[in-house]
Amino acid sequence: MSAKETQTLGIIGMGRMGAGIARRLMRAGHRCVVFDANTQAVQAVSKDGAQGVDKLEDILPALGAAPRAIWVMLPSGHITEQTVERLGQLMEKGDIIIDGGNSYYKDDIRRAHALSGRGIRYIDVGTSGGVWGLERGYCMMIGGDKDAVDHLDPIFDTLAPGFGSVPRTPKREGMDDRAERGYIHAGPSGAGHFVKMVHNGIEYGLMQAYGEGFDILRNKHSERLAADERFELNLADIAEVWRRGSVVSSWLLDLSAAALAGDQTLEGFSGYVDDSGEGRWTIEAAIEEAVPADVLSSALYTRFRSRQTHTFAEKMLSAMRFGFGGHTEGMLEGGVPHVSEHGVPSEPPGVPVRRAAE
Amino acid sequence: MSAKETQTLGIIGMGRMGAGIARRLMRAGHRCVVFDANTQAVQAVSKDGAQGVDKLEDILPALGAAPRAIWVMLPSGHITEQTVERLGQLMEKGDIIIDGGNSYYKDDIRRAHALSGRGIRYIDVGTSGGVWGLERGYCMMIGGDKDAVDHLDPIFDTLAPGFGSVPRTPKREGMDDRAERGYIHAGPSGAGHFVKMVHNGIEYGLMQAYGEGFDILRNKHSERLAADERFELNLADIAEVWRRGSVVSSWLLDLSAAALAGDQTLEGFSGYVDDSGEGRWTIEAAIEEAVPADVLSSALYTRFRSRQTHTFAEKMLSAMRFGFGGHTEGMLEGGVPHVSEHGVPSEPPGVPVRRAAE
Amino acid sequence: MSAKETQTLGIIGMGRMGAGIARRLMRAGHRCVVFDANTQAVQAVSKDGAQGVDKLEDILPALGAAPRAIWVMLPSGHITEQTVERLGQLMEKGDIIIDGGNSYYKDDIRRAHALSGRGIRYIDVGTSGGVWGLERGYCMMIGGDKDAVDHLDPIFDTLAPGFGSVPRTPKREGMDDRAERGYIHAGPSGAGHFVKMVHNGIEYGLMQAYGEGFDILRNKHSERLAADERFELNLADIAEVWRRGSVVSSWLLDLSAAALAGDQTLEGFSGYVDDSGEGRWTIEAAIEEAVPADVLSSALYTRFRSRQTHTFAEKMLSAMRFGFGGHTEGMLEGGVPHVSEHGVPSEPPGVPVRRAAE
Amino acid sequence: MSAKETQTLGIIGMGRMGAGIARRLMRAGHRCVVFDANTQAVQAVSKDGAQGVDKLEDILPALGAAPRAIWVMLPSGHITEQTVERLGQLMEKGDIIIDGGNSYYKDDIRRAHALSGRGIRYIDVGTSGGVWGLERGYCMMIGGDKDAVDHLDPIFDTLAPGFGSVPRTPKREGMDDRAERGYIHAGPSGAGHFVKMVHNGIEYGLMQAYGEGFDILRNKHSERLAADERFELNLADIAEVWRRGSVVSSWLLDLSAAALAGDQTLEGFSGYVDDSGEGRWTIEAAIEEAVPADVLSSALYTRFRSRQTHTFAEKMLSAMRFGFGGHTEGMLEGGVPHVSEHGVPSEPPGVPVRRAAE
Repeated sequence: MSAKETQTLGIIGMGRMGAGIARRLMRAGHRCVVFDANTQAVQAVSKDGAQGVDKLEDILPALGAAPRAIWVMLPSGHITEQTVERLGQLMEKGDIIIDGGNSYYKDDIRRAHALSGRGIRYIDVGTSGGVWGLERGYCMMIGGDKDAVDHLDPIFDTLAPGFGSVPRTPKREGMDDRAERGYIHAGPSGAGHFVKMVHNGIEYGLMQAYGEGFDILRNKHSERLAADERFELNLADIAEVWRRGSVVSSWLLDLSAAALAGDQTLEGFSGYVDDSGEGRWTIEAAIEEAVPADVLSSALYTRFRSRQTHTFAEKMLSAMRFGFGGHTEGMLEGGVPHVSEHGVPSEPPGVPVRRAAE
Repeated sequence: MSAKETQTLGIIGMGRMGAGIARRLMRAGHRCVVFDANTQAVQAVSKDGAQGVDKLEDILPALGAAPRAIWVMLPSGHITEQTVERLGQLMEKGDIIIDGGNSYYKDDIRRAHALSGRGIRYIDVGTSGGVWGLERGYCMMIGGDKDAVDHLDPIFDTLAPGFGSVPRTPKREGMDDRAERGYIHAGPSGAGHFVKMVHNGIEYGLMQAYGEGFDILRNKHSERLAADERFELNLADIAEVWRRGSVVSSWLLDLSAAALAGDQTLEGFSGYVDDSGEGRWTIEAAIEEAVPADVLSSALYTRFRSRQTHTFAEKMLSAMRFGFGGHTEGMLEGGVPHVSEHGVPSEPPGVPVRRAAE
Repeated sequence: MSAKETQTLGIIGMGRMGAGIARRLMRAGHRCVVFDANTQAVQAVSKDGAQGVDKLEDILPALGAAPRAIWVMLPSGHITEQTVERLGQLMEKGDIIIDGGNSYYKDDIRRAHALSGRGIRYIDVGTSGGVWGLERGYCMMIGGDKDAVDHLDPIFDTLAPGFGSVPRTPKREGMDDRAERGYIHAGPSGAGHFVKMVHNGIEYGLMQAYGEGFDILRNKHSERLAADERFELNLADIAEVWRRGSVVSSWLLDLSAAALAGDQTLEGFSGYVDDSGEGRWTIEAAIEEAVPADVLSSALYTRFRSRQTHTFAEKMLSAMRFGFGGHTEGMLEGGVPHVSEHGVPSEPPGVPVRRAAE
Repeated sequence: MSAKETQTLGIIGMGRMGAGIARRLMRAGHRCVVFDANTQAVQAVSKDGAQGVDKLEDILPALGAAPRAIWVMLPSGHITEQTVERLGQLMEKGDIIIDGGNSYYKDDIRRAHALSGRGIRYIDVGTSGGVWGLERGYCMMIGGDKDAVDHLDPIFDTLAPGFGSVPRTPKREGMDDRAERGYIHAGPSGAGHFVKMVHNGIEYGLMQAYGEGFDILRNKHSERLAADERFELNLADIAEVWRRGSVVSSWLLDLSAAALAGDQTLEGFSGYVDDSGEGRWTIEAAIEEAVPADVLSSALYTRFRSRQTHTFAEKMLSAMRFGFGGHTEGMLEGGVPHVSEHGVPSEPPGVPVRRAAE
């Protein structure tokens, strides 16, 4: 498993991540055969040395003899499923399919099982690195057949960040040093994407913790507060100072400091927040295992909530409040009901005077 | 402590609750002397038999000899504080001030202590009943001096709902039957409002539980779901059926059923939800006691969130997502940053490539 | 659909619920043919008029000509699945299988689809009522084929609680009155169990709201609090008084009042709390629909947590606290690490002095 | 504000933090006069060059002429309060008191106001650094009078970590570079401790996010799961690999990796987790500002829960479950109630058959 050995790898999907992976591999001398439905994406990477092919079917002949390895780097879901299925039909015993996207780990288990019948090995790789991976390297969590993972070690070793200047953790002598170089073989099929899934679940929780904290800092100037308890805090400086010597320093804090240095009101950001599948699957895994996951759940729900004007639950609260207290806060213009002399809402939504009769 | 005895009570504050209390007492033969800064409110209750006075100072002479009792039924906060203070100056040893509003229980403790120096007794009464109290009776949680509470028993007995048709709880033989008639002497000063405060905290939690459940029912027709897993559920019928024989039957469910029978889309309600102090104080009490209160906290936070378009926390999430992934979901029109060839956001908000160097 | 019509029903499963259903039906003149692997359970119900059979296969001949209907009242999961499958093999076109247990609604959709190919109708009935159903009636949420549901109306009508003395909800004129009698046809296959599932999810939330509130009341005597802010509250009386006229009155509160009247310390209860599948599935449904469900999730997690001495998450917190602060709270006897002169934990668990070098 | 200037500083409190501060200052040439009720603690630091005094009163004369500055580094609460009060009596116009502990920011505001009447300046410094501060430097968030803060700049500059090798945040040109050196003047009195308080609140949230995630990873080997979905994950390797190139890298992750490298079962840690005041005050601040803080609250509640065998809330759940379903899970040995023939709990805790009669 010398890191010096170079290999040939097929890569399907020349989006931001796929193209970054190809470029990082080629810089280290590996050969890449690439395909994408988008011809321009293929051409861009070809300029940097990749061999582009026009049809999915052409990728296998271009890779040479088995065992051949193809890295699928596509959006999780239908297109990845289809591509893996098609490759399974085209490939031969000993060939390797790597799913580097964000597939659900139970899909990995199913696919690996199906392909193993034909002797094809399926490897799931949770790949972290975002837009920074090309330069920083990709943190990889790998699941699947040990021989296939070992065979691909030169690829993983190149893609990973390496030791870098991160201080060594004490007491790791004798442990697998791949973790310190930025990749692990986490376990059997599905284990790679499972670990990556939980990674993303944690990420949601961390982000929400910072988000809530800065929200509390920012609202400290609220006029609801006593005059001498109001502070106009400089959020950019606060994020910056925490980067040095504080317990909350992290890469997410670095990013926050950068964003706040640009504009500490964050006016350019709407606060509409998407979620990808991993946050949801993490909660489902927690529930399957009966692990309490309050923080990770709340972080997910914040995102759900951020995409709505008002939830139906909130309308229910307004409706109940109106029912028992005549509170009309929730009434839209034109919807204010008639209130009788005693302040009891006499008409819609009427309320059964249940206990009065009891 | 015969419930037949009638008394004279001063009442300050002729809003919905104060007027309801006066009317319920007068129906049972008690005499009420009432004051409100709003002359019309006083006149309305005077028509039903109350003796109205024009100035706060006139209420005491109209009540006769000490011990005199005055029920303050005003919004909690500044105006209640001022009124109690003024009464304390006017009253004599043995007189009783009843704060029937929603004061913070620590204010009760302070006030009771201050007034006791002059021999004036201060009673705190958490009063539940909303707009329905006049007819159904008021559920009361009382704190303060035992003698004063006993003295006022005819008042409390009249105001309370009474046994009604609510089935008796087994094994209560020998216990204080005031609880079964709808009022309790909860403890020393502050205990009444403390119990009422927790009551409201629970109310928030119950409401939110129903709210979330109906939200899940309503969104079951979402087009995101597989076609045979989509249901168009009739929320009005569901709320109604649960009122009979199910574990979730409650008065809040009765109110929900009524609201949904009127319009199961609840379009007339905006979903902007206020909160009064009790929900917040309940969380503060939980924290002081180190009691985990996840559900009651979440219920409160939903209300906070319901009153904002987007929180600053959500903008932080958008900003971080942009920072590590180039996600531009959060960018408002005109705010989309330049993205370099490799998809790395090259400019605002820039991000230090920290770990790349490590 | 006269409620007077009597029918013959097969019932499989003579546990608490199944036997209750048989008895309630027979009291109204319906005929029941019953089976249970437990012969004694069958005999007990036979004494009350049911026709018991010894083998599952014998139930169909005893029911007469098609369309025959069999109510399966077994624990959800494997045994229900097997039984439905076996009945599907034995039954004929037009026959009806009713699953009255707590099956996952997606299983209903699958089963109904499979059985429809042979003309057999599958009805899912979410049945609430617990140990009280025999006397109070069962609240039923029904999913599946309309003709089959209509055909069985005399059965549902008998099992349901009926109007009772529950006050009528205003504005329901012209709506389906089955909801007011205690059962609804919620929608196609799966809709019955889906509504029941959310019902249980809400139930968890309601229970937790009461639980937290009473926890705050109970801990108000904590010695951590200032002496005049400590109250010894009578929880039995508090639960009782809230049953009358307060916003939080409910059947769960009735149960709480009964339990607390028995012993307000609840010493007989361990606080180890099981959960059945519905609470979990409710969260999964919320996540599928992107509905924020903070309260229902927290309620579920409390139960998970209640069954453990310490979570691994908590050990992680202890470990991190030791790492950055030398806090040794988490160290078990014999596990206290060596601490150097400056209080820095010099040995296990060692910590890389990362930022010092930066 | 040259960092080269050296000053004389009094320090009260020679615990871990106070002694570290003294040593770090003396290494840079500053002079320290120190006091602690514990004579041995004073002697230890005196060996490294500090001038120890035996009585609090002796510290002022040893400092020379006004303006003199004394850093109080004591546990927050009573002892800090007393010490500040005593210093206020001893000091003169222009002198400076620095509270470097974890005081509640509202106490700072009160103290600063009281001392300003006598011309004494009070500075609040939130100090992060834990056991690592002596070597790494202390991250400081400072509140109070600008002139006093500027005067003390050589002290803060020495204590702070400095630029170090942390990559610079883009777009900070022209901003206050103290943030990049590890300290900020956050605002008026209280602002320093307020920012530190939120820092700790965030810290709780981050820790809990990691805790939950690793809990989900660890329980993935649960026998409740399908055999091919069970993984034996190496938590030490996972924490390690995430330190390189992943979005969740942080100092807390570094600490976690170190702890897990020592023993990935964390058996030496009990999971009993203390909390200091800041986490609680952060929630109170959120509530005052009406900021939703679900994650920070849950993180706090986890700690509360970790210190109990069972909460009263959980016993309430058990009691209700017994009430409606006859579930006896919660019954301790000897507490199992008699269950009647129909499975209805016939005796304690009895339950009113409320709705049956309705």
